[in-house]
Amino acid sequence: MRLMAESFGRRLWAAVEDRGGLCVGVDPSPEVVAHFEREDSLESVELVALRLVEAASSTASVVKPQVAFFERFGSRGYAVLERVIAEARAAGLLVIADAKRGDIGSSNEGYAATWLDEGSPLASDAVTVSPYLGVDSLEPFRRRCQRGRGLFVLAATSNPEGRSLQGARTAEGVRVFDDVLARVATWNEGADGVGGAGVVLGASAPRGEFALRELRGPVLVPGVGAQGGGLDQVRRLLEGVDRRSIVVSLSRALVESGTSPRHLISSMSRWRDALSENL
Amino acid sequence: MRLMAESFGRRLWAAVEDRGGLCVGVDPSPEVVAHFEREDSLESVELVALRLVEAASSTASVVKPQVAFFERFGSRGYAVLERVIAEARAAGLLVIADAKRGDIGSSNEGYAATWLDEGSPLASDAVTVSPYLGVDSLEPFRRRCQRGRGLFVLAATSNPEGRSLQGARTAEGVRVFDDVLARVATWNEGADGVGGAGVVLGASAPRGEFALRELRGPVLVPGVGAQGGGLDQVRRLLEGVDRRSIVVSLSRALVESGTSPRHLISSMSRWRDALSENL
Repeated sequence: MRLMAESFGRRLWAAVEDRGGLCVGVDPSPEVVAHFEREDSLESVELVALRLVEAASSTASVVKPQVAFFERFGSRGYAVLERVIAEARAAGLLVIADAKRGDIGSSNEGYAATWLDEGSPLASDAVTVSPYLGVDSLEPFRRRCQRGRGLFVLAATSNPEGRSLQGARTAEGVRVFDDVLARVATWNEGADGVGGAGVVLGASAPRGEFALRELRGPVLVPGVGAQGGGLDQVRRLLEGVDRRSIVVSLSRALVESGTSPRHLISSMSRWRDALSENL
Repeated sequence: MRLMAESFGRRLWAAVEDRGGLCVGVDPSPEVVAHFEREDSLESVELVALRLVEAASSTASVVKPQVAFFERFGSRGYAVLERVIAEARAAGLLVIADAKRGDIGSSNEGYAATWLDEGSPLASDAVTVSPYLGVDSLEPFRRRCQRGRGLFVLAATSNPEGRSLQGARTAEGVRVFDDVLARVATWNEGADGVGGAGVVLGASAPRGEFALRELRGPVLVPGVGAQGGGLDQVRRLLEGVDRRSIVVSLSRALVESGTSPRHLISSMSRWRDALSENL
């Protein structure tokens, strides 16, 4: 056996076993901030984000801050994001930075260091990335997966505008999203049961030809609830996938019936239980 | 004639006529910082970036900061990026934030506000974006193009890892990058000669079926020089495109023969002249 850090996939297994498969989307958009009856300001963003993290700490295994809603306040917004990430990790939550980064060569090295290196002020457990420049261009992220960090590569998403591109066929006749899944799967070869290289699959994404159980990495599923997908759809889509590798991300659905700590914990607990029963 | 802000494409025409088609890549990677004989720190990043902007102010029309190399220092890195953007704009340079952002719905609204809204601390003239979630998912950016801001959508890039995905064929038999070009072109319909919706085309990108002169928007060309493409290739690729719409981005090639102000101005001037003679 090679000496290596425990994979992110293994850490996720343990977290999901312990606290369930709910990923709380920390999305302080103007719309979500309004649910908290606050005006849209950086102060409100911080309050909303920390309140979501606090409620998640007793009900969820993972939080996923959407970077865009912090970045809109520039460096001050990033200072708040740093605090949110640190508080979440200190509370024992796994943090997926929802950044959808993706570039070439040395720029990816910069992004991978930003989101996945322990010394970085934005260090998270995993990050979402985009494969438009080729899955293999994501090499700096892959290397960090070998060292215990996690990665979620966009594969097939729920939004209708993405279908045409993601369903296009490569010269080998393979659909783009199937090709992404197959390439990411190779990054988990040699991992002990499950690796750190995962994918994003929307709840209402089309079913492809790649057998998802062969991914042997985590699957992040947005698009349930407010975005319209149902859990039965998710179960069918991910048939054969170890359920400890599946995290379902919700955000608006968690705040719509109230934003007091009690309300948040209650709606998060209900979703956590619904995931346990249905996946 | 409709009342609207002057398009980014028009502003670029004027800048290129006045100062040529060079876009200075402000890429303070560890490698570029080393060329300045500095250790890799945030202080060095600031010095390198401001020195590049200063030299660009007399030799170039556009600067393109690569966000990754600032983001790696978290909120403090972003504070430096804010200063770099502000100094460049104050010097009369157009600023393209090389951020390659791209998400869905309200997240894109956050990113578009970050990079393109005048009140934002990171407000730039244009931003690069990624179309993996569908060109039409980039609507919040498109809307800002109608109000005088610019956009560069990744189409075909020079890196070999991107070929398979970007050359895949949609259900209509169109290659992904051609489809991106055609969709972005519709955003410039109704613009007065040239709009603000542009694309990124690598210097050694394959030639597609879409006639680029019909884009009627700006084209950002990386991949010349250090990355291996030649200007003759660029000229052939962009045949029929108004040369005032073409900006060629260079970074490493500008620092390799010396990093004093005199050296930088000299190598930038040579590239500006080479672009004028060859495009």
